Amino acid sequence: MNFDLKLEELAKKIKSLKKKPKLILVQVPEGLKERVFEISGFLENELGTTFLAEHGRKGRKLGTTGSPLGTTMPFSQGSNEALSSQARQSVLRNKPKVVVSAEPCFGACDLALKDAEMLKADLIVHFGHFDFGVKSKIPVIYWPLSIEFDSARLVEKIALACAEQGWKSIGLGTTIQYLQEAKKLEKTLQKKSIKATCFQVLGCNYKAAKKLEAKAEGFFYIGSGLFHALGMQFALEKKVLVLHPETLELKELGAEKEKFERQRIAQISLARQAQSFAILVSTKPGQFNITNALEAKKLLEENGKKAVIFTAGQLMPEHFTGLKIDAFVNTACPRIAVDDSSLFGKPVISFEELKAAFGNRQPWSF
Amino acid sequence: MNFDLKLEELAKKIKSLKKKPKLILVQVPEGLKERVFEISGFLENELGTTFLAEHGRKGRKLGTTGSPLGTTMPFSQGSNEALSSQARQSVLRNKPKVVVSAEPCFGACDLALKDAEMLKADLIVHFGHFDFGVKSKIPVIYWPLSIEFDSARLVEKIALACAEQGWKSIGLGTTIQYLQEAKKLEKTLQKKSIKATCFQVLGCNYKAAKKLEAKAEGFFYIGSGLFHALGMQFALEKKVLVLHPETLELKELGAEKEKFERQRIAQISLARQAQSFAILVSTKPGQFNITNALEAKKLLEENGKKAVIFTAGQLMPEHFTGLKIDAFVNTACPRIAVDDSSLFGKPVISFEELKAAFGNRQPWSF
Repeated sequence: MNFDLKLEELAKKIKSLKKKPKLILVQVPEGLKERVFEISGFLENELGTTFLAEHGRKGRKLGTTGSPLGTTMPFSQGSNEALSSQARQSVLRNKPKVVVSAEPCFGACDLALKDAEMLKADLIVHFGHFDFGVKSKIPVIYWPLSIEFDSARLVEKIALACAEQGWKSIGLGTTIQYLQEAKKLEKTLQKKSIKATCFQVLGCNYKAAKKLEAKAEGFFYIGSGLFHALGMQFALEKKVLVLHPETLELKELGAEKEKFERQRIAQISLARQAQSFAILVSTKPGQFNITNALEAKKLLEENGKKAVIFTAGQLMPEHFTGLKIDAFVNTACPRIAVDDSSLFGKPVISFEELKAAFGNRQPWSF
Repeated sequence: MNFDLKLEELAKKIKSLKKKPKLILVQVPEGLKERVFEISGFLENELGTTFLAEHGRKGRKLGTTGSPLGTTMPFSQGSNEALSSQARQSVLRNKPKVVVSAEPCFGACDLALKDAEMLKADLIVHFGHFDFGVKSKIPVIYWPLSIEFDSARLVEKIALACAEQGWKSIGLGTTIQYLQEAKKLEKTLQKKSIKATCFQVLGCNYKAAKKLEAKAEGFFYIGSGLFHALGMQFALEKKVLVLHPETLELKELGAEKEKFERQRIAQISLARQAQSFAILVSTKPGQFNITNALEAKKLLEENGKKAVIFTAGQLMPEHFTGLKIDAFVNTACPRIAVDDSSLFGKPVISFEELKAAFGNRQPWSF
């Protein structure tokens, strides 16, 4: 997808920071990875110029000691990091440098804090998402990106659907990339006497939608894919219609919702029969929840099950190859239970689903 | 492979710690992952008993609030970690808990420090490797494991080879799993008037071998695989023979060494022609080297190349899918350049090789 990265604006924002960054850690969503050379090159160039103008070119030129064949073999680990802070200073003195986080990033819950701390980065630029609330001692610039689409094309479609449903007041949920353009719909729909309120939908948090429920008669989810739409529908009593911003396809979630519920019940049912459980804890700062994991372990053991808690940054099915695991309990990003379930090859249920399946007070019944 | 985990001995060692751990992070090499349920279960059981005897069962029983269908859907992220330290305390009060790091671990350079800090673990048990020198505020028990093999079977083979080579004093390098048994060879070979000194070989550090070079007339590498043997051979002037501890196959490295050199020269040659480079930095604590990466970037840019520095815990080829990268410069584990080169689909050279290829003083020539 062709995003406008607004790099000049970003460089300007970085230049306006009180403390000029020397080492910047850049994080991009997967769809933007192919543009990291452009991002890195542009920022280093833009910032380097200002930086030099302000500080002059004081650094000594680093010598490069070539080596004979023997020691160039790729076995040696190179110089000791701790000893070479002088070299680091020397390289960074003249020109700020960009480092890119190579690990897949699916949200601002996944802020690369630990990498930034290790690098002693003095700025994180996180592309593609808004602040998720992860606390960071290192300054962070969140740089959400918009996909361009023509919201005007959606107006008639929404107005017609509202007429059919008898809605005069609606909520318009959408993901971050569409949010900016979708906000224009509030005004254009008002001309058609529809009171629309636009809000961002996250895959793990539907508070914005719930907050609106008392006022809105119905909801639209503007986007592709069903994950967020289903999340909205399960969070809300009121109906959610899904509108694709490009194809303009409009659909109800009734059948999808039922199918999804059947799938979840099947997963939970299988998990109830499982003997050995892996409880998944992500070390991504906005997903980390060892407390739920410990409670899950306790609950499982009280029910005579075996359970081991596993941590990883990105929790991947291949981490569990060869282990005798009958079911997974996910305490991290909800997409692991929903989207990756088939990849794990075993039922993956959430902590809440586990409590429903094994809890004493309100046992799951079906 | 069937390792004796010596779990009783380990539990005893943990019990002897002054500060009794409540949350233990366990790290195992890939070959041991299938046994983490056994490890976790045994340790929790053993330590729980002592723990209870010492502290009594004071904790309140945690309530489990089951939830109706709506809120059990796997979209919600569960309780806020920060708010639930009381729940954490309650779960951990009665019985120490084990958490297992799910990410692949290939050495003690890869100590799961950051995960342990995040978990507020009070002990790391690292199976399969000796201390690599990674500094940790959290106590670490390194728990190397031995593969059982019969070193007596190797004596004749080594003695014969020594006679052929005219060696009376030798170095015996081997990896951690074989070290304990291999040490017995020092005594048994002495009876055959061969002075043998056994030492551990790491894939990124051949100091132990080098230290011995003045005294030894020749070397053996006891193990399977060629990576460590080649590393030894490149580090040493003296000949290294490879002896497989199971099959007893004995071979010289001449042909392998030449083949390896040709491969490296080909990689370096291709890298010299590359335009855009990805410089790899691992955030594994014993592999992290941003200084070398910054110097590599500087050197490449001085040579008119484009270069972006990338960080990740485990540096994987799939992190770079879709990026226009002509060559990789590896500053992390040397095995990435040697073993994973083909997976990256492009030349992967080490920092030292880069300096030889592009450095001014002693340019690489072939």
